[in-house]
Formats: sequence, structure tokens, C-alpha cells
Amino acid sequence: MAKEYLLSKIHKPSDLKNLTDKELIQLSDEIREKIVETVAQNGGHLASNLGVVELTLALHRVFDVPNDKIVWDVGHQCYAHKILTGRCEQIHTIRTENGLSGFPKRSESDCDCFDTGHSSTSISAALGIACSDMMQQNEHYTIAVIGDGALSGGMAYEGLNNAGRSGKKLIVILNDNKMSISQNVGSMARYLSRIRIKPSYLLAKTKVHRLERVPLVGKPVTNGMKRLKDWTRDEFFGQKKNMFEQFGFTYLGPYDGHDITQLQTALNAACHKHFPVLVHVCTKKGKGYEYAEKNPKYFHGISAFDVETGEPKSSSKGYSDVFGSVMCETAQKDKRICAITAAMAIGTGLSSFSKKFNDRFYDVGIAEEHAVTFASGLATQGMIPVFAVYSTFLQRSYDQILHDAALQDLHIVLAIDRAGVVGEDGETHQGIYDAAMLSTMPNVTVFAPSGFQELTLFLQKAVYHTKGVAAVRYPRGGEGYLPKEYQSSDTPYVFLGDEQADTLIVTYGREFSEVCLACEALKEKGVSVCILKLNVIKPIPKAAAEKAASFPTVYFFEEGVRAGGIGEHFGYELLTKGFHGSYHLCALDGIIPQAKASSVLQKAGLDHLSIIDAVHHA
Amino acid sequence: MAKEYLLSKIHKPSDLKNLTDKELIQLSDEIREKIVETVAQNGGHLASNLGVVELTLALHRVFDVPNDKIVWDVGHQCYAHKILTGRCEQIHTIRTENGLSGFPKRSESDCDCFDTGHSSTSISAALGIACSDMMQQNEHYTIAVIGDGALSGGMAYEGLNNAGRSGKKLIVILNDNKMSISQNVGSMARYLSRIRIKPSYLLAKTKVHRLERVPLVGKPVTNGMKRLKDWTRDEFFGQKKNMFEQFGFTYLGPYDGHDITQLQTALNAACHKHFPVLVHVCTKKGKGYEYAEKNPKYFHGISAFDVETGEPKSSSKGYSDVFGSVMCETAQKDKRICAITAAMAIGTGLSSFSKKFNDRFYDVGIAEEHAVTFASGLATQGMIPVFAVYSTFLQRSYDQILHDAALQDLHIVLAIDRAGVVGEDGETHQGIYDAAMLSTMPNVTVFAPSGFQELTLFLQKAVYHTKGVAAVRYPRGGEGYLPKEYQSSDTPYVFLGDEQADTLIVTYGREFSEVCLACEALKEKGVSVCILKLNVIKPIPKAAAEKAASFPTVYFFEEGVRAGGIGEHFGYELLTKGFHGSYHLCALDGIIPQAKASSVLQKAGLDHLSIIDAVHHA
Repeated sequence: MAKEYLLSKIHKPSDLKNLTDKELIQLSDEIREKIVETVAQNGGHLASNLGVVELTLALHRVFDVPNDKIVWDVGHQCYAHKILTGRCEQIHTIRTENGLSGFPKRSESDCDCFDTGHSSTSISAALGIACSDMMQQNEHYTIAVIGDGALSGGMAYEGLNNAGRSGKKLIVILNDNKMSISQNVGSMARYLSRIRIKPSYLLAKTKVHRLERVPLVGKPVTNGMKRLKDWTRDEFFGQKKNMFEQFGFTYLGPYDGHDITQLQTALNAACHKHFPVLVHVCTKKGKGYEYAEKNPKYFHGISAFDVETGEPKSSSKGYSDVFGSVMCETAQKDKRICAITAAMAIGTGLSSFSKKFNDRFYDVGIAEEHAVTFASGLATQGMIPVFAVYSTFLQRSYDQILHDAALQDLHIVLAIDRAGVVGEDGETHQGIYDAAMLSTMPNVTVFAPSGFQELTLFLQKAVYHTKGVAAVRYPRGGEGYLPKEYQSSDTPYVFLGDEQADTLIVTYGREFSEVCLACEALKEKGVSVCILKLNVIKPIPKAAAEKAASFPTVYFFEEGVRAGGIGEHFGYELLTKGFHGSYHLCALDGIIPQAKASSVLQKAGLDHLSIIDAVHHA
Repeated sequence: MAKEYLLSKIHKPSDLKNLTDKELIQLSDEIREKIVETVAQNGGHLASNLGVVELTLALHRVFDVPNDKIVWDVGHQCYAHKILTGRCEQIHTIRTENGLSGFPKRSESDCDCFDTGHSSTSISAALGIACSDMMQQNEHYTIAVIGDGALSGGMAYEGLNNAGRSGKKLIVILNDNKMSISQNVGSMARYLSRIRIKPSYLLAKTKVHRLERVPLVGKPVTNGMKRLKDWTRDEFFGQKKNMFEQFGFTYLGPYDGHDITQLQTALNAACHKHFPVLVHVCTKKGKGYEYAEKNPKYFHGISAFDVETGEPKSSSKGYSDVFGSVMCETAQKDKRICAITAAMAIGTGLSSFSKKFNDRFYDVGIAEEHAVTFASGLATQGMIPVFAVYSTFLQRSYDQILHDAALQDLHIVLAIDRAGVVGEDGETHQGIYDAAMLSTMPNVTVFAPSGFQELTLFLQKAVYHTKGVAAVRYPRGGEGYLPKEYQSSDTPYVFLGDEQADTLIVTYGREFSEVCLACEALKEKGVSVCILKLNVIKPIPKAAAEKAASFPTVYFFEEGVRAGGIGEHFGYELLTKGFHGSYHLCALDGIIPQAKASSVLQKAGLDHLSIIDAVHHA
């Protein structure tokens, strides 16, 4: 008889409670299959989700969600959680327009208690929830699940530092998968590896737990043992506790994160310890899918792929690759060039650089704040640091860019990848704020290439011919349409087309492709327009604004947030240049949900068809 | 015979090298006297500077600045350093216009290697410098001096985490003064207090150092001892090193930070250890000035005071006091109100709240990132968190406000103190960026009161009648001029004066006072103008912009940064409302050096006389 398909019977976490150990193992297999199938189809985070299947099952067996609350750090490991909390039927829609989000979303389910996406926020958020519970005299547990990679972020430490003093019912699960998004770096990583390899330590802890399960006798005996051991350590050696204990946590672990029974025992034990408790769980990224186990970095966040071969369904040269090549060429000729990444060596295209110029390559972990100030330190000594970072994560460095680099007018280069609409990762990952954010700072220049050649040109300009903070921002993926006759240049701006036309279209970056397509179609319709392409978007080239002010009608199409964006700045510049025409700014509203980038652009009126419509029917 | 005045003989650090122990003690007395005298006159950071006099002397005796480099975290302890590095003659100008800065400034001296002002940046910057030295094959030392308070910031941890793996010649001095700016909070604070109280530990370390000074014999013996001790700890207890050692640092200390001889021995020893090295030094804030020793919090950052009595030369009710009172009243009536501060309980006016509502008061340490996400966590459970923070330090929370609060549309309140020009603290502390910064985010509303009554009204509005992130920003100090007939209201904007006039002046916040004074004078000159006072500056009230667009001439006077500021946004709004008049925006340029606020406003054309000139002579 064929085995019954268990997943179809799980509609809420409490449906898990009566499953046998054997059924749980079967269920974890089914969940893994579902996850691999889904990510192969839709793209998404694979390795991290496969790693926490048993942990998620154990959490939902022991805790009572939504009364108890789980905050998933980063959130790229929440697929099993979604599957088990009533969303199995919709999981095939994950990361698609109007579908389930690839990250926790409060708007989706009351089992998601906090939206995440960026790293290292979970302990802070969970502490907030736990403190509320205490103030409101609720007796629920709050659990933060955080990876070892996320633990390299300063916020996680701030959270630990504040949580440690609290007696709130807070449990932090350290999901130690030995390797975070990229190479795991820093002392914390080394430190965890030291804890991990001590089987004697693990054994001793397990024994204590076994004793505890003997009712009445167990507790006093183990407490006595623990006190004796603590006393001995204290007396003889002054310092003795591990780092988490020193932070005020009760430390349990490390445990095998793929042994559901052991995990349940550990989590049950955690509920009866002195709070807060840190449960150290070791998991394997990509667990259960061979290709992902072998190459978890590659299978961290991935586009659609073939389940049988593990090969991507499509692949083409992207901006990140071009950036990586330029960096290698430049570093070859110039010993001052350093590259910095915050745990995104592969994503930002720096793999090759990291091998060729290892002594000038710094992966600082998920620590964007440190990255910028570290770069500033390098810059004071005449080095030329290039920090390659996703637009959305650069937000973590606002103060450091302003206070440590810009105010001192230090020359650091920001290579801002994933600028603009990112598509399926949705709200929390859109690269649409960086231009507005950087526009508020002095001594900052921002370049916006519209193709690979311009990326190369502008990087050289940023590295060698710009003072202060020089940023180059470019989108996710490959090059868009460029007219055959278009010649890239490194001037701050370019006017193209009919300069005598009544209508001027201003744009920058990737959106230039849509504008070109639109203008070609308009030309065919007999509508003549002029294009102003801004290569430097901050500061706005005054001469460009001055010339633009003479056009009766000016459109600005911007793949970026409207509030504080370049289009608003440009409007203000027009006003100061005596512009009396009509100004139409088409940009993105503040929050952009997940959808293919092309769909987002279309909805926002930024695709070439919308541009044609707007200009033609004006 | 009167003792010779030693300070007059110290023109550069090397002049210290030949002083006797007795002379060094005399010199430290002279430096203290100079510091007290200067701060009593000019205001500034007193307690922190008095605490590091001996440490600074020891550093300059052992190291060779500017070849070796010292990064002062926050920088509020650099007065002795300035006095000893050729700036004694100018120290009386500190914090005055065109005078010495109260913080390290590379532009002032090559002995200042990195500008600081905000907390927790020193380890990152110093690591950058040390890495450069290594790449450039320099053999210099880089020293970061960081307080225990600054160690509560996540950036410091990111720095430690990255520095620990490096063999660079990096020395971190932990200046442990047991109490940072406000109440010292968190697990790290408790942890340090545990290290500190172990005299046996101190004794053992000192003995080891004594042995080391025996040439040839010393080293192998002590190394052997250390290995034996480490081995014993390892074998018996698994975990054994203290937190800094676990991070990969060689730990030395704690030492008496007021014993120059001991400090020199320690620093010399540090030069010969395995790098990086952390030297733990215990100092007393306010050391040597009785009032400051007794009340170091009060004497942390202080206005001019009377040396004999310790009393401030002037004192009046400020915005912070009003905020504190409103918070207490509101919390009394509503159990959902929580107050959060990042180590600024006194500065933000929350002292009284912290006593009355201790269970709803959270001092999170210098951890602005955690503060906002923690607040977001509270908000998910229906609490109403109010984070009181200086404008300049809110910059640390950009990503958390956007990603954790705004995108989720969570209701948190930001009480932004020290908004606008702050005066003597200068560039790094100006509260001029927050309005521009918040303008780039969705789901954020910003209120700008122009007086105490409006602060009260707008706080209520922010707490009870605003969705999402509600910010109220108000300046340092007291209330400015308000016309007798002026009635505060909580509407988003107010038109005042002659609505038929040709000229409209738009403004908000403190600048409203200057505009009112100017308009009264203009009226006397027969020039009639209308005023638009924005109470809500983000989003710009559309109806206000629409009405404003009908005026032929519009001025905007803004005590905030021009780039991305409210004036630029307003200009854009005018443009979209069909405005064809002339628009004049007077705002602050990106970097505002130290000077009295009144002087800054005057130079920027924002004082009432400049406004009169601008409008009258247009």
C-alpha cells in the first residue's frame, strides 16, 4: 500500500501534535520535496529553507503558534513554516505577483508575527514582543530563530546585549549552519566552530538533560551538579562561561538540528530554564538535496533551476559580472584598490577578485556599518576601497556614509548592486531608496550607468576622478536595450534626439532602455522628443537642468522612489532655473510588492508602452 | 620656589619622553586644571575628558604619534590629546566659531587621524588604518580608544568581530569608566563589572608582567605558564577564555587608568603580544574635579558653569523638559505608553519617566538600531513605544525605521530632540539631516512644533492620531519668539498674515520665530507678506502647496539641509500645482561647522535680519 501523503492533512500547527516519530520523518521528506519543487519553479532561497525543516517541525510541535511567536531572522528560511501554518496550498505561488511572499508577512497569516528580510533584526523584535507580553501579563513564549551569519551583524549583538538582562520568556535559537550566505567570517564564526567540535561538551549537556527527565529527583540533583561545576570554574579560573552565558543567557546545545526528537527535548527543556535561553542548533544548509548540500552558497538564493541536474534554467552575463571583471583589471594595475563585501562575495561578482587579490579582499560578514567605516579608515591612508553592496542593504550604512566618510570628505567607492526594482524578493529588498537616501548627503556623487560599457566607464570615473564618496548604482541582471547608434560617454549628462522638440524626457539608469524604446516608437508616430539622460544623478548637473528648463514640457521617468528621489530634485532645479512649463514625474511609490520587474514597471507606468501613452496622449 | 609650569614646555608628544614620574603627575594636574577652566568657560565634555588624562599621557609616552595612530571613539575625550599635540595655546577656543573642535579633526592636526563624534566607530576605522599599514608594509601601531558605553553599540561588535581574526598591529584600549553617558545597560556592562571586581585576576596578571620584565628568562617562563593555564582551562571546562579572548584578542588588564607608570608598562607589554590586543583600563569619569566625580552624568556634556560651585551659568526650561512632562502625563493615563532611549535618559528629558514608570522605560545603551526594531516589536503587540533620540543619532536607524517600522506600517513614535542647528558640537552633531532622511520613506509623518504648546499638541497627535511612523522634531534648548496673538493648533499647516499679499514665506519649526520677527519688521516698513507655517512637514500638505502656488513669489526658509530637504520637496509640489512664480529656497548647505546657533543662522541667511533683507530688497 502506498504511503499516505501526510502534508495534505496538516492545515494548522496543532495537526502536528499527534504524529509519530516515523510520520514526522516522512513529513520532513514531503516538505523538502515540496520546497525543492517550488524553488526549482519560482526561484527563491533553497539551501536555508532545506536546512530548517526538522527545526520548524520541532518548534511547531513544542510551541503554540500564533499564541507563542516565532520571529524568523532574515526570513529566508520560512517556507516550511508557511507550509505548516495553513499555506501549503498556496506555496506554489511563492514569490509571484499576488502570491505568497518569500519572507514572513504579518498581512499573510497571524502565524507570522514580524516581517523580516534584512538580517539580524530578530532578537530586537522578539525582545519587543516578549516585553509586551510581560507588560500585558501574557504567558506566551517568544522565539527568535537566527543564523550564525546573521550573528555577525551588530544589531544582533545589540539585541543580545539587551535581552540578556531580561527575565522575559525569550528563547533565541541559534541556527548554526556553519556557513552563511557567503564565506563565514570573523571571530564569532571561529568561536562557534570551537563550541561545535567539542563532543565531550555535547555529551555532558545531553546527560544533564536525561537526568532532568527523572521527576522530582532530577531537578535538585542537576542543579546541585551545575552549581558545583560553576563554582569550580569560577574559583579556579575567574572567567568561565561561554559567550552567550556571559551575556546572561542560559545556553543549551549544541544539538543536531536534523534530529526532531532531540530538538523537541531541547526546546521543552528551554521552556523550564532561567530566561532568556539560547538553544544552539547545528543544521546543514541544503540538507536533503544533493546539489544544494554540495554547493550551499550557490543554492542560497537562486533563480529557477532543473531539479534533476541542479542547473539554472537560464543564465546570462549580468552587471555584477562586469563589475567583478573591472575590479580585477583595476586591481591588477593599482595596488591601492581594495574590495569589501558584507557577506555577498558571489552575489556582487567578487569571487574572482577574492581569489586573485586575497590580501586586498575583505568579507566583513553581514556588517554594512563596519564595512563603510572600515573603508573610511582605509581611505585615510591613501587606499581606494570599493564596497560592493546591494542597494537595499546599503540602508544599514546611512550614518556611516554621512558621518564617517562624507563629512570627512574621504574617498570611498560604493558599488551599489541590485539598484532599482528587484522583482520577486519584494518590498524588503527593493533597491529603490538608495538614490533618494544618498541625495540627502554632502560630498557624495552618484553615477547611474545604463549598460555594461557605462558601468566600466563610470567605475573608472568613480575610482580615479571623483572626490569624496563616489557611488555607482546598477540593476540586478543583464543589460537592457540600447540603440545601435548610442555611444556611451562619461560626461555627467547627455542630450539625445531632437533638441528643438517641445517635449523633453529625463531619465537615468536602466530606465533609459524603456525611454529609448518609447522614443523610437514615438518617432515612427511622428512625435519628436528629446531625451536627457543623466549619468550623474547626484548632484544634479546644473547645466543639464538649465537647458531642460527651456523645454515647454518635461517628463521624468524614474525607477526609484518618488519621495526624495531624483525626479523631485530635478523638478526643484527646473523651478530655480525659471522653468514655467509643465513637469510630469513618473516614479515609484514608497512600497513595491513582489512581481516580475517588468510587471512592476508596467504598473508604475514606467515601461516603454506606458511612456508612449503618456507622451503621445498628453 | 614656585614649581615650573610644565605645560608651557610641551609642544609635541615627544616633549613628554624625558619627564620624570613626578613631573608627569604634576603635568596631569595642570592638564586637568586647564580642562576644567576651558569647559567651565566654553561648555563641552568634562567628565570624559578628566577621566583619560593619565591614559592620554601614557599613550603619548609609549607611542609615536602621528606615525602611530590613535582613533578616539566618539571623540569626547580628546582634550588632553589636543593639549599635548601642539594645541594647548588654542584650547581656550575649543567649541567656538573658527576655534578648535571639541572632537578630533584631521583638518586640525596630523595627530588626529580620524574624525569622530558618533559612537562605536573607532575599532572599524582603526582596523582600516591597520590594514592599510600592513598592505603598505608600514610598521606602525594603530590604537582605538573606546569607552564601555560605546561598546554597547553594534558597530563596536562588528569591529571586534572583524579585528579579532587579523594579525594587524591593532591595540584596542577599553576605557572602562563604569558608567557611560547615561545609566550603563546591558549584559556587556554587567560582564565588565564582573571582570573588574576580581582583584585576584588583576594581581595574577600584574605578576606575569613583572616576570616579563626579566630579560631573556622572562618570556619563555611566562609563555610556559600561560600555556599550562590555558591547557588546564581547556581540558577541564571546554570554554574558558574571557569574551575578548574568545574574539581573538590578547587581553591585558584590568589596569588602574590613573596610574601612569602601570599604564605605560601595560602599553609597552601590548606592543609585544600577539595582535590584536585589548587593554582593559579602569578610569573614573570626572577624576580630579569633585563635582564631576560625584555627578559624572550631569558633567558629561555641559554648558558653561561656575568652577567654584559646579553650578550652570544659566538654565532655563527646554523642549526636552516639556517632552519629559508630556510623556509622564500621557503614561499616567495610558499603560501602553513606553519610553525608549539610547543612553540619553537625561539629555532627552526622560529622567523623571524612568523613575515613575520604570517597567515601561528602556535604556538600550548606545544602540539606536536595536531601539527602533525593539520599538517595532512592541508596536506589533499594541504597545505605543516612543523613542526619544537626538536627531544626529537617529541617522543610525535609517534602515530600521524604513525596513522594520515603515514597510510594516507599525505605529512607533520618534521624539527627535536636538533637531536643527546644535551649535558648538559642530559638524558631526548637527540635527539638520533628519527631515531630509525621513522624507525618503513611506508611511512616515513628521511634525515640527515651533513652541512648547505645539510640542505638547503634536505629541498627542503623533501618539494617538497618526498611523505608521510618527515623528516629532524639536530643537535643542528653549522656546523662541512667538507673536502674542499666535494661537497654536494641531492642523497640518497654518496661513498667517495677509493672504492677499504677493509674497508668501514658508517655514517650519524653530525658524518660524525668525520669520515672525522679520514679518513684523517688514509690516512696519509697509511690506505686507503672508506666512505659511507647516506643522506637518512630511508628507507636504497638498492643500497648503496648492494655495501657496497662487502666490507670485514664494520664499522658503529652512533650518535644515537643502539637499533633499523640505524646501526642495515643497518646490516640487509647487511645480506640480502649476506654480509659475519665483521660488527662493534658503536652507543649510551640507556641512555646518561649530558656532553659536545664532551665528550659523545668520551666516546662512536664516536670521530675521537676513529674511528682512531678502524679502525687502527682492
